Amino acid sequence: MKKYAIGVDYGTLSGRALIINAATGEELASSVYEYPHAVMDRALPDGTPLKNDWALQHPQDYLDVLEHTIPAVLAESGVNPADVIGIGIDFTACTVLPTLKDGTPLCFLPEYQNRPHAYVKLWKHHAAQDKANELNRIAAARGEKWLANYGGKISSEWAVPKIWQILDEDPEIYEKMDRFIEAADWIVWQLCGRETRNSCTAGYKEIWNKKTGFPSEEFFAALDPRLAKLPDEKFSREITPLGSRAGFLTAKAAALTGLPEGIAVAVGNVDAHVCVPAAGIDGPGKVLAIMGTSTCHMLMGTEEVQVPGICGVVEDGIMPGFFGYEAGQSCVGDHFAWFIDNCLPASYYEEAQAAGINIHKFLREKAQREKPGESGLLALDWWNGNRSVLVDVDLTGMILGMTLQTRPEQIYRALIEATAYGTRMIVDNFKEGGVPVEEFVASGGIARKDPMMMQIYADVLNMPVRVTSTSQGPALGSALFGAVAAGKEAGGFDSIFEAARAVDTSRDIIYRPIPENAAVYDKLYAEYKTLHDYFGRGENDVMKRLKAIKNAARG
Amino acid sequence: MKKYAIGVDYGTLSGRALIINAATGEELASSVYEYPHAVMDRALPDGTPLKNDWALQHPQDYLDVLEHTIPAVLAESGVNPADVIGIGIDFTACTVLPTLKDGTPLCFLPEYQNRPHAYVKLWKHHAAQDKANELNRIAAARGEKWLANYGGKISSEWAVPKIWQILDEDPEIYEKMDRFIEAADWIVWQLCGRETRNSCTAGYKEIWNKKTGFPSEEFFAALDPRLAKLPDEKFSREITPLGSRAGFLTAKAAALTGLPEGIAVAVGNVDAHVCVPAAGIDGPGKVLAIMGTSTCHMLMGTEEVQVPGICGVVEDGIMPGFFGYEAGQSCVGDHFAWFIDNCLPASYYEEAQAAGINIHKFLREKAQREKPGESGLLALDWWNGNRSVLVDVDLTGMILGMTLQTRPEQIYRALIEATAYGTRMIVDNFKEGGVPVEEFVASGGIARKDPMMMQIYADVLNMPVRVTSTSQGPALGSALFGAVAAGKEAGGFDSIFEAARAVDTSRDIIYRPIPENAAVYDKLYAEYKTLHDYFGRGENDVMKRLKAIKNAARG
Repeated sequence: MKKYAIGVDYGTLSGRALIINAATGEELASSVYEYPHAVMDRALPDGTPLKNDWALQHPQDYLDVLEHTIPAVLAESGVNPADVIGIGIDFTACTVLPTLKDGTPLCFLPEYQNRPHAYVKLWKHHAAQDKANELNRIAAARGEKWLANYGGKISSEWAVPKIWQILDEDPEIYEKMDRFIEAADWIVWQLCGRETRNSCTAGYKEIWNKKTGFPSEEFFAALDPRLAKLPDEKFSREITPLGSRAGFLTAKAAALTGLPEGIAVAVGNVDAHVCVPAAGIDGPGKVLAIMGTSTCHMLMGTEEVQVPGICGVVEDGIMPGFFGYEAGQSCVGDHFAWFIDNCLPASYYEEAQAAGINIHKFLREKAQREKPGESGLLALDWWNGNRSVLVDVDLTGMILGMTLQTRPEQIYRALIEATAYGTRMIVDNFKEGGVPVEEFVASGGIARKDPMMMQIYADVLNMPVRVTSTSQGPALGSALFGAVAAGKEAGGFDSIFEAARAVDTSRDIIYRPIPENAAVYDKLYAEYKTLHDYFGRGENDVMKRLKAIKNAARG
Repeated sequence: MKKYAIGVDYGTLSGRALIINAATGEELASSVYEYPHAVMDRALPDGTPLKNDWALQHPQDYLDVLEHTIPAVLAESGVNPADVIGIGIDFTACTVLPTLKDGTPLCFLPEYQNRPHAYVKLWKHHAAQDKANELNRIAAARGEKWLANYGGKISSEWAVPKIWQILDEDPEIYEKMDRFIEAADWIVWQLCGRETRNSCTAGYKEIWNKKTGFPSEEFFAALDPRLAKLPDEKFSREITPLGSRAGFLTAKAAALTGLPEGIAVAVGNVDAHVCVPAAGIDGPGKVLAIMGTSTCHMLMGTEEVQVPGICGVVEDGIMPGFFGYEAGQSCVGDHFAWFIDNCLPASYYEEAQAAGINIHKFLREKAQREKPGESGLLALDWWNGNRSVLVDVDLTGMILGMTLQTRPEQIYRALIEATAYGTRMIVDNFKEGGVPVEEFVASGGIARKDPMMMQIYADVLNMPVRVTSTSQGPALGSALFGAVAAGKEAGGFDSIFEAARAVDTSRDIIYRPIPENAAVYDKLYAEYKTLHDYFGRGENDVMKRLKAIKNAARG
């Protein structure tokens, strides 16, 4: 008899459930629920105002996702709930909240409903930048060895700067919280009644290392004496590897979701990382690029190497038994959206309308007619700084080669090419750093919808680019982890590797490099690299100086 | 009794006459006549096709200008023709034609009407580029000293490459022509019945020098043995300084124009150079920038200095007794037009329409609200190469500092600022080269119509910018030269210096630098200069390599 697993993917604005065949990975039905509170970046529900760069969420929304989407996928698929054997979830990260010992979020307590620091800090809460800067300064000064595991910089988006901000700005909330926990782990706690901490977020976002644990008490005390015992007082030293079972569905969670009590619940995971098995990747050497507004790159290796300029390396961080490497590009889809909003002339809209086609398609068709190198343009894809391999938010965009004959579609294509060069920079950096790369897999909306872009990536990387066919990468990955948590005997899988190999990749599209294009892009990439280093590695810090002048002008 | 002078300005598409008070320079009436044949760049009048980069004109159009516009200004002003004492003309340059000994254009002969090389080659005829490249190569190899007077390069727009092209492609026309003459001098010949060659075009366009004459016979022979005696066979060694009288109006020309026979005719001049006295400039140290699609800079000095990267230095080339220096920027108005055509988003047109204002004004108002440095942007103004001080058509545009918050008006302003930095580069280059600059005067449509731009120029140059009020700079300058040719006794002026001082500059607008803006622009200019040298002086020739890749891609 067929068995099923459910995956729930918590995104920035909504949650999505997917039900799959637990033995084959086949997708049956999905359902989306938008968070009623969305992202709170101006005020709390009661009107309490928030400062610049804040981004909060309400944990009740996460519970509501379970209540709405799981019954919906059961109904739509016609699956008997009794045949569901496991559930897995993934979340944006680092999205963290303060709770009591029993898991109650502080913001659920009436006395703290007007306290911003009692709520969930969403990944893109950027108000702890000062703390991150100070942390990096102290860590570098102390020669902390773990810093190199994160490309030399801890992000303001991660847990330690965020909790330090709470301590600094609202010490009562800091005192009151018994746990400071990733939303991924919190939801799993609500499902199975037991607190777990997954190795992925612990490693990438909480500065935990499987071999060496958390940073030392001395380090935390150097930040603030009150933080000395942070890992023991607010985090946990019990870290569970990905692919493990966190526990079994409680009666309360069963009632909420309509699922049978006692089914397996997988440990929490991160939306990007969970895509790796969903893309059919079962081991080292294969880069997965998840392409959206920004791009996240994941790669597994058999050794821990400190590769410069990556976001992190974490043992068991993607799949158990391997070192998971993460890198990123801050500006991909956002780049093209910026161009379309700010640079596309009125005449193109008129032409597109006259031709009866969508402006995006119109632009892509024009860009597609251009041959590599034909525009004479070259751009640096730093409109939103550079995440990897320079790890520098103060870098800015550049484009050169314009003449009076330069047309908008050429600029658009140059921006796409720039993101491809940025990707090659990351791939080459992994290889040079000692982490082999043999295959390149792309997923995400942009990858599926833009064949021109994917061909450019194949040509620039000079390797085949496989684009995954699923539009449900994260939810599929979570469901696979749910099936793994249930185990083969129950109708699922014995390991996440087995699950990854079961995924049907036959409808994936493979873009192969066209040799004459690759030859031209080799030359252009060499030029990109020269400018990348000139502007990005200190030879000419004009971008930073311009930012300083800009900040001074704005007062 | 009041006396009057007439100036005729021959532009690219039309000719314009202006009548002035010969003693005060006061403008009374003007009239424009568009050339019936305009620019012939695809075919001759009989349909004979033209190749790429050709640009021809028909000399009959120039005579028609006289016949139409002079009677029109006489009629409109109500001036008695008997009170007109002199006439001066200016022309685009180098605009040249082959004629017989008596001045008859070869294209007037029925047997040559279907021969492209029999017509006037307009300044922007660019089909002699191969010849210019070869000429520059040979001149450099021979160590010709005069080459440095032209910033190290002879342009394909000038006379020697153009006549060499004729010799090469249609030797019969070359043989048949007795004279190869600037249209400026040809029209003066038609007016006074006597061939003259003015010192301005001879110096800037025909490689003539007051002290050393033309290049040597050996040099011309090195180009082609048949060119050995070019100056004697097709040009002339009798060069007349600007401000001289060429002769007196013939009966035939009097009949054509309605002017009295025997009035003074000034020697020919160039449209840009003739603007200098019209701007009230009477001596060294004052840069005149004529701003249009491109910008032409003129400056007089008391010594002949070989300033690197300028277009030319010619004794008597602007006013007699001084060394006239010319420099240029290839992309000014063209730059902004490119931006508006290619980069201005549809939403801005909608907003402008909703606000009921013109898109240019809308954009300028937005750009005007930006403070210097506030955008974080910096551009190199090389969309059309760099004329001065790099003299390199293969350079291309660059802009950097973009973020996802960058808005179109910021880019627009950055392009304007880039042209201002380019101007400062030229001014600084003159100063460093030993030619003093004490005042900056701007004329032309852009200067009069864009106060924001002129304030930016004043701030970037950190010197006052005076914008001339006349919209008739060239025709006014020509009329002043006409009044000088007539002389003070007849009711005009004794010298062009006296004429320049008579020009009413009381309605000129002076933009003064705002110290806090100038301080910011000093910093930005330093960044511009670093990038200017990095990309422009060989440290990173990426722009040239991209052009080579582009040309290869286009096949």
